[in-house]
Amino acid sequence: MPPYTLDDLELSPGKRTRLYRMLYEHGPGHGTGMFLPIDQGLEHGPRDFWDNPDSADPEFQLRLAEEGNFSAIVFQVGLAEKYYARYAGRVPLVLKLNGKTEIPSDEEALSPLNASVEDAVRLGADAVGYTLYIGSPVQDRDFAQFAQVRQDANRLGMPVIVWSYPRGKFVQAKGGQLTSWAIEYAARVAQELGADVVKVNLPEYDPENARLTPKPYNSAVFDEDEAVRRVITAAGRTPVLVSGGSRVDEEDVLAKARLGIRSGATGIIFGRNVWQRPYPEALALTRKIQAVIREEALAPVPARV
Amino acid sequence: MPPYTLDDLELSPGKRTRLYRMLYEHGPGHGTGMFLPIDQGLEHGPRDFWDNPDSADPEFQLRLAEEGNFSAIVFQVGLAEKYYARYAGRVPLVLKLNGKTEIPSDEEALSPLNASVEDAVRLGADAVGYTLYIGSPVQDRDFAQFAQVRQDANRLGMPVIVWSYPRGKFVQAKGGQLTSWAIEYAARVAQELGADVVKVNLPEYDPENARLTPKPYNSAVFDEDEAVRRVITAAGRTPVLVSGGSRVDEEDVLAKARLGIRSGATGIIFGRNVWQRPYPEALALTRKIQAVIREEALAPVPARV
Amino acid sequence: MPPYTLDDLELSPGKRTRLYRMLYEHGPGHGTGMFLPIDQGLEHGPRDFWDNPDSADPEFQLRLAEEGNFSAIVFQVGLAEKYYARYAGRVPLVLKLNGKTEIPSDEEALSPLNASVEDAVRLGADAVGYTLYIGSPVQDRDFAQFAQVRQDANRLGMPVIVWSYPRGKFVQAKGGQLTSWAIEYAARVAQELGADVVKVNLPEYDPENARLTPKPYNSAVFDEDEAVRRVITAAGRTPVLVSGGSRVDEEDVLAKARLGIRSGATGIIFGRNVWQRPYPEALALTRKIQAVIREEALAPVPARV
Amino acid sequence: MPPYTLDDLELSPGKRTRLYRMLYEHGPGHGTGMFLPIDQGLEHGPRDFWDNPDSADPEFQLRLAEEGNFSAIVFQVGLAEKYYARYAGRVPLVLKLNGKTEIPSDEEALSPLNASVEDAVRLGADAVGYTLYIGSPVQDRDFAQFAQVRQDANRLGMPVIVWSYPRGKFVQAKGGQLTSWAIEYAARVAQELGADVVKVNLPEYDPENARLTPKPYNSAVFDEDEAVRRVITAAGRTPVLVSGGSRVDEEDVLAKARLGIRSGATGIIFGRNVWQRPYPEALALTRKIQAVIREEALAPVPARV
Amino acid sequence: MPPYTLDDLELSPGKRTRLYRMLYEHGPGHGTGMFLPIDQGLEHGPRDFWDNPDSADPEFQLRLAEEGNFSAIVFQVGLAEKYYARYAGRVPLVLKLNGKTEIPSDEEALSPLNASVEDAVRLGADAVGYTLYIGSPVQDRDFAQFAQVRQDANRLGMPVIVWSYPRGKFVQAKGGQLTSWAIEYAARVAQELGADVVKVNLPEYDPENARLTPKPYNSAVFDEDEAVRRVITAAGRTPVLVSGGSRVDEEDVLAKARLGIRSGATGIIFGRNVWQRPYPEALALTRKIQAVIREEALAPVPARV
Repeated sequence: MPPYTLDDLELSPGKRTRLYRMLYEHGPGHGTGMFLPIDQGLEHGPRDFWDNPDSADPEFQLRLAEEGNFSAIVFQVGLAEKYYARYAGRVPLVLKLNGKTEIPSDEEALSPLNASVEDAVRLGADAVGYTLYIGSPVQDRDFAQFAQVRQDANRLGMPVIVWSYPRGKFVQAKGGQLTSWAIEYAARVAQELGADVVKVNLPEYDPENARLTPKPYNSAVFDEDEAVRRVITAAGRTPVLVSGGSRVDEEDVLAKARLGIRSGATGIIFGRNVWQRPYPEALALTRKIQAVIREEALAPVPARV
Repeated sequence: MPPYTLDDLELSPGKRTRLYRMLYEHGPGHGTGMFLPIDQGLEHGPRDFWDNPDSADPEFQLRLAEEGNFSAIVFQVGLAEKYYARYAGRVPLVLKLNGKTEIPSDEEALSPLNASVEDAVRLGADAVGYTLYIGSPVQDRDFAQFAQVRQDANRLGMPVIVWSYPRGKFVQAKGGQLTSWAIEYAARVAQELGADVVKVNLPEYDPENARLTPKPYNSAVFDEDEAVRRVITAAGRTPVLVSGGSRVDEEDVLAKARLGIRSGATGIIFGRNVWQRPYPEALALTRKIQAVIREEALAPVPARV
Repeated sequence: MPPYTLDDLELSPGKRTRLYRMLYEHGPGHGTGMFLPIDQGLEHGPRDFWDNPDSADPEFQLRLAEEGNFSAIVFQVGLAEKYYARYAGRVPLVLKLNGKTEIPSDEEALSPLNASVEDAVRLGADAVGYTLYIGSPVQDRDFAQFAQVRQDANRLGMPVIVWSYPRGKFVQAKGGQLTSWAIEYAARVAQELGADVVKVNLPEYDPENARLTPKPYNSAVFDEDEAVRRVITAAGRTPVLVSGGSRVDEEDVLAKARLGIRSGATGIIFGRNVWQRPYPEALALTRKIQAVIREEALAPVPARV
Repeated sequence: MPPYTLDDLELSPGKRTRLYRMLYEHGPGHGTGMFLPIDQGLEHGPRDFWDNPDSADPEFQLRLAEEGNFSAIVFQVGLAEKYYARYAGRVPLVLKLNGKTEIPSDEEALSPLNASVEDAVRLGADAVGYTLYIGSPVQDRDFAQFAQVRQDANRLGMPVIVWSYPRGKFVQAKGGQLTSWAIEYAARVAQELGADVVKVNLPEYDPENARLTPKPYNSAVFDEDEAVRRVITAAGRTPVLVSGGSRVDEEDVLAKARLGIRSGATGIIFGRNVWQRPYPEALALTRKIQAVIREEALAPVPARV
Repeated sequence: MPPYTLDDLELSPGKRTRLYRMLYEHGPGHGTGMFLPIDQGLEHGPRDFWDNPDSADPEFQLRLAEEGNFSAIVFQVGLAEKYYARYAGRVPLVLKLNGKTEIPSDEEALSPLNASVEDAVRLGADAVGYTLYIGSPVQDRDFAQFAQVRQDANRLGMPVIVWSYPRGKFVQAKGGQLTSWAIEYAARVAQELGADVVKVNLPEYDPENARLTPKPYNSAVFDEDEAVRRVITAAGRTPVLVSGGSRVDEEDVLAKARLGIRSGATGIIFGRNVWQRPYPEALALTRKIQAVIREEALAPVPARV
């Protein structure tokens, strides 16, 4: 059960209206979210469409988002301008404002702005997305770029969803992107810098990596539930979306959704795990994920840590 | 049956998204609209709340808009800022950008801007409203003011609903605000100047007034249906909302809604006729109006003139 | 007892912080306000200082505001720049942004901007004041000017107190500034246009004037309590300050304060009634007014109409 | 046959008007394009004019463009200002906004802006061109620069043709600029970032280079037709122009044009292959290319993958 | 005893008003300050919350700031927007404008802007905080960034508190961050560049480090009192706040506060030393610190050097 309702958060009317549409009017509802990202064509290139060639056509994801009742679809500006009009209003839109190719080295990762908050307003979007690379050697440029997005979003009542990812050579040297230390830190940074919603990966424990993290994380071991709850707690009053990552078995997809919502996440944002499957299979899985989210969202509320 | 669907109109994705919410997701649906205006406290002052004192509290109209499933509520900026947050997302918002008191003479009517399109975006509104006084001696200032609103709305993907009202001493000298001539002219002007939707009064035939209109209107007599169809036709590809005006009998309210939608209007915008009644009566009437709109909207399509 | 606490209102953190200082930290507290205006030197000229020549020196009012523990002092920008520094922080400041002399005719009243919201921020003010002339023939210019102030104030988290005054030749023709019709209308307009707080005169019943107001006001008679409660109700979620007007007997001053707070006003704003008396008398009266406000504010809450 | 007509694309009236001129009124017509670029003097320097010294005079290309009925000529701003006036309207203009010399290393390629979209409007251009270096280590600066061009072009209704080229040291390390992986990725990026039209090179299979590309591209072999169709598919709803590259035999030029259009490209953009030949030969080849495009454009439509 | 009162400093009314609130109305008063910073979640990450997990919730610090009567709480913009509204006015706010994670190397330290002075005004803050890394290889970018903040703050009457920290590889080579040379230099730089208040660490003498500092510091030894007085003197008319640093014993915390105020500091700013303890212990320590500050502030004034 998500720990916060919109009533609990300090949201301007515009942000509240737009979040309400995604978390109550569309998707699984009851204050939860199920988002369909399709920016991998930019981030990873066409190799991601190889297993399901139909998925290279954004119509595939739009149909799935409408028929599967997603809370929103996530597009870069070019896809939004070319494909969204025919689905305008039927499927809420999250406009991803920055993005990059995977071709250059990630050592000094920075994701440049490809669109503005005003573009998002113009296109009828209900949120903007921004990738923040926590710990990158060029985080100074990233933070400054994000500050401008936050201010524009604040002025226009547009919710900001931060893809908060530890990244870069210093993160690598301290155990990589998936340690509890790095992900909790990323969740806290998003909250400190003013994200309205934060998207995180779930930690994966690996003793070799954990040993490289700062004290006292380097000697701590958390079980899976505790590790996820700690991330949600680190995000504070910033609702959390759980990333899907690369494709895994259907059972694992559903287990991740259940684990996330049960631990207090507000929603999930699964892309490849959904649309790398043929349409009927993708739709069926979507419905199962939605059922899991609803089931967990309506379960008796555990005490919040 | 409204003559146009959103697919028939040249709408940017943002305008389309926002109109879709009001014409398909909320209200009677099927591309029709039922709007609840509550800007009369500014336009007419508290005398309008006299018959139903509860209506002076904007919560009255908000509850009614939510429970009665209106397509949107219409507020000036002050009411939106003070009352909308708790209904954010539940009831779409039309922010009325200009407005005035009725205290000064209407001979040189001009309705000044009290808010901006950016205010509307910030508050999560799905449209802005603008009162254009066709034929006023100061129409030059009015048109220039409207041009700026239209440009801002275009840039931000925000639909503009124009309250298109013949007004001022020259209109009075030519038969007043309710002749077919004046109202058809007002509908055409809204279309020419770039309204996305136009709100009009229905013509009322009065031989004395008609005689004062320009040729050949001064010798024409239209039956009620024809008079309304002519207004819809004059608005061209600008969907039409029918105004309610001051309170009349319930049967007359329903007849006006039926006449409007049957003649090709996209929706109705009735304020005093609804909220000047006690809550249970207002809600019951709302439901009847909604039933009439749906019935007419789903009726077999007549050939369009 | 004021009907609303800050928790009940939709206030941004900046507006809330600044109102808190005036309504809880300074003045009578408990969510009430007692304001000391000294802009009469501009509005009425030096004739107002005739009875108490000391009052021409703004130090008189500043000392009184500090020693008498007012919620804030109200200055035009020139007085603020010349006199406020030595009291900075000790006495909250309301910067009056517009103002005019009484020399020209009031038939087409308009109060021009003499300072900006940014001036108020720069000077450390906790609110800005704006005089809005309801019903003036040039209300179009007034409303447009106010809209800019409201937007700046919104952007900077600065509360706006509106001096909402019916004024001009059309108001005169409809019974003048002090009818229930005119004052209720003024309170409603301030709420519709986005005032955070509204300052009004209390209605004074005069059968000749009342007869000139629009229906149904022209045949209504309210007792004093009802007349005041109606104004508070017309202001909705906009806290009300009761104006003092020209000097009256001490008992009448205290009675007006009691009547206002008991009827749901948030505070009083008395100028000439206080500082047109010699210092010791002014200070003694201040303390009596404060005692009355506290007494009423802490009285058992009556049911709200 | 190009897979999309202008009716199939979400184009604003301005972009549509301008594309219509190039794809229907000038050039081979029927929705196809044949563009003549002459920016090689900047990109490669005067060595490109060595074989046909007449080609160093932009009049050469302008005459050829008019007499050979090209869809448009492509100029940097200096050539447009100095040579275009006498052909204004006779030959549509594409203003290339960025460009660089080949003198510095291409390892960190970035093509700076030399002109603005407003320059293009001022000069009467029907499109702007922008070179985007996919995968360059400084792609962050490139993407940010392009975002500004896209926004200006959107505001002014100006089509943007993106020269989408994989480039830089990381591309070299992954098989170079001509692998299917790199070119499909480049086509997708142009679509994601908001190109209206994309110009690409056709892939050239080389087993050594292919082996260096990411999985699963590193083990895939496509025949020529399939390789081209995959690029067109990767571009989605972004019409594709096929680049010519350095000069080859006439038969190869014609085969490339036929292969492109047959595979779904909207047009070709051949420079050196045309104007590095003497005028009569260049004109004759132009007419043959045009015949090939028309023939393919009017051929029975193959089913689209 | 702090050497300067607000009357001694050349402060604009806005800065003076805001400083007065923190140094006289809230906190220990008498012109002294006791600030509670909670930006360590950004600067150090969640490891700082490990010993007292409750401290990860900003409500912990807000309750402590209110109940313990701190002069102000220090937040990054995200925490201010999410947590401050319910404490608005009860606890003054210092908005920290820049900040970074500790993940990248500190060799070229630069703290990017995450918020603006206008954000601070909007949120009702009484000061802004800025971290200036004295001596960093990129101090040119830092100084330029600070100049903009200072100008904005000057225009809006907002006090600027500078966290003035020697940092970066050249500082390391010259004895590190805690030598008298480095800290006196940092205090002087803050004064030269226009800080209103400066926050410094106290010097720690270490002969190895001292030897690496420039002449004549490399051969100087100061006793503790003298070292602190020299820093205060170096700051000139810029009131000094003493940093707490990482957690030490309660006796050491109190001794540092006493040493600072006795030596002429205006206040202390202790974070981890307070909130890394359980709530009752943190509150008890807060009260002891406050007692020490008051005791020293009211002690007979020593002659100023």
